[in-house]
Amino acid sequence: MQIPNLADIQIAHERIKPFIHRTPVLCSEKINQIAECEIYFKCENFQKVGAFKYRGATNALQSLSEAELTLGVCTHSSGNHAAALALAAQKRNTKAYIVMPSNAPKVKIDAVLSYGAEIIFCEPNIRARETTLQTIVDKYGSTFIHPFKDTRVICGQATATIELLEETPTLGYIIVPVGGGGLLSGTSISAKSINPNIKVIAAEPTGADDAYRSVKTGELVASQTPNTICDGLLTTIGEINFEIIKQYVDDIMLADDTQIVEAMLLIWTRMKIVVEPSSAVALAIILNNKDYFRNTKIGVILSGGNVDFSKIKSYI
Amino acid sequence: MQIPNLADIQIAHERIKPFIHRTPVLCSEKINQIAECEIYFKCENFQKVGAFKYRGATNALQSLSEAELTLGVCTHSSGNHAAALALAAQKRNTKAYIVMPSNAPKVKIDAVLSYGAEIIFCEPNIRARETTLQTIVDKYGSTFIHPFKDTRVICGQATATIELLEETPTLGYIIVPVGGGGLLSGTSISAKSINPNIKVIAAEPTGADDAYRSVKTGELVASQTPNTICDGLLTTIGEINFEIIKQYVDDIMLADDTQIVEAMLLIWTRMKIVVEPSSAVALAIILNNKDYFRNTKIGVILSGGNVDFSKIKSYI
Repeated sequence: MQIPNLADIQIAHERIKPFIHRTPVLCSEKINQIAECEIYFKCENFQKVGAFKYRGATNALQSLSEAELTLGVCTHSSGNHAAALALAAQKRNTKAYIVMPSNAPKVKIDAVLSYGAEIIFCEPNIRARETTLQTIVDKYGSTFIHPFKDTRVICGQATATIELLEETPTLGYIIVPVGGGGLLSGTSISAKSINPNIKVIAAEPTGADDAYRSVKTGELVASQTPNTICDGLLTTIGEINFEIIKQYVDDIMLADDTQIVEAMLLIWTRMKIVVEPSSAVALAIILNNKDYFRNTKIGVILSGGNVDFSKIKSYI
Repeated sequence: MQIPNLADIQIAHERIKPFIHRTPVLCSEKINQIAECEIYFKCENFQKVGAFKYRGATNALQSLSEAELTLGVCTHSSGNHAAALALAAQKRNTKAYIVMPSNAPKVKIDAVLSYGAEIIFCEPNIRARETTLQTIVDKYGSTFIHPFKDTRVICGQATATIELLEETPTLGYIIVPVGGGGLLSGTSISAKSINPNIKVIAAEPTGADDAYRSVKTGELVASQTPNTICDGLLTTIGEINFEIIKQYVDDIMLADDTQIVEAMLLIWTRMKIVVEPSSAVALAIILNNKDYFRNTKIGVILSGGNVDFSKIKSYI
């Protein structure tokens, strides 16, 4: 796979524009006061299916040939990519087969079903996911759209930053959460290509710090037994994503679940918008590293808003 | 007190426009599918202080004379009016004294304090509120701005409907929650004056059904021992509000707390916005009276977004 460039991302953006929401960039005076900096939140929680993942899935689906479309698409995903692919497939009148871990949040299972996809449950580990996925590919001949190790997906996720920088071109930092690295790698190509002076920071939960260890050692480390409230950030980063991250990402920082929940509640309470825990890692890092970010202008991509309230209420 | 008319409300609107947010009107395809009608949500949860109450408080403060301003303002309130008056007073460089029940939600106490007001706590009953308030008036000579029995406040609250009908003039219904009746009475004057064919429906929790019983019997009934999750809707409606309601409101309907929480979670989950329980009564009524509202166009004022998550998590 070749690393995409800004032109690829701009083509993707034009391709998906008719299908996605241009999400708002919101600010909160109160949060800026507390954080002692200026934060511009790109609200992908308001994206279709409630997450930025719809950008990548739509770019992938809209890139398929008619022959590929007749056989459908498939993927494995812990949640938002699953719903995104399901809806993107429905919009292209093709079938989506989704391999999901048996412990996936109910809200995400319901979303996938509501978009007409077929779910195949498997054990919640990467081996079971991949084996189950392969049986689907063998059986139906459907095209596998990986949640992040796919340049079409990376280019799609990268488009959020194009929009963010159109509205707020003078950012000093962009901070995005990292799970598999699709959003992070795409964001970093967009940001650095548009303005090499922007610092791109990865935000990761302490309980799933494989990307942190990978970046710090220069060797791709697998996520072994992740333990965090951020159900969207459990996976190991992909090889291509890691290559891009090494090239374009300036730093990676951690926040623990207590800090993440506090940041999430601050967003809920002050901005009156619902974001999922994975979206709050960036703000948690800003709030706990005030000396680092003081008086800067920061773009934060709020990655999604799909919260299983019954599951997380013990944290709030 | 004289019942205000549309001209009074339009003057109020011009007066407060520089200070308030023009809040968005949002729709949700999914909620419309579930509800089997078209709902236009006027998002006063995004209003300053997180509630429509800022409209009425601002209209009152901006109407005061310089002499009155030197002595400050005071009120008693279970929450949103308190925060609203505190901020409106701060913006006019005057002092606000707020009498609050000792069991007021922490999020609302914090908000009032953050706007520089002075809180005087009292027992959580209407008698204690009024007695304590009188001592403040006697001591400081400050102007009492009642949360709803005040035409300046009623005119301010009424402006949300002016904006809603500017954007969606073809509504068949407007449904708003009723506590003291400030929003309901103001809404009904605006709606009926602009288009007498719009049906105005009051939405009340079963656990605080004093307005329901008042409307049904034609006699103002006091709220005795209200028991509902809707902490903004506990009070008895005011006399002037009742006069207006009798004249302009078409119907009043009830929803119980289980239905209200379900509707609230639907808004949180589908729209990715935070609304407080009091805001969800209207949707709860729509969802539980589908035959009544099927295929109609309904405006719903989402009255506020100030949720004390630690307090309501046992319901979700």
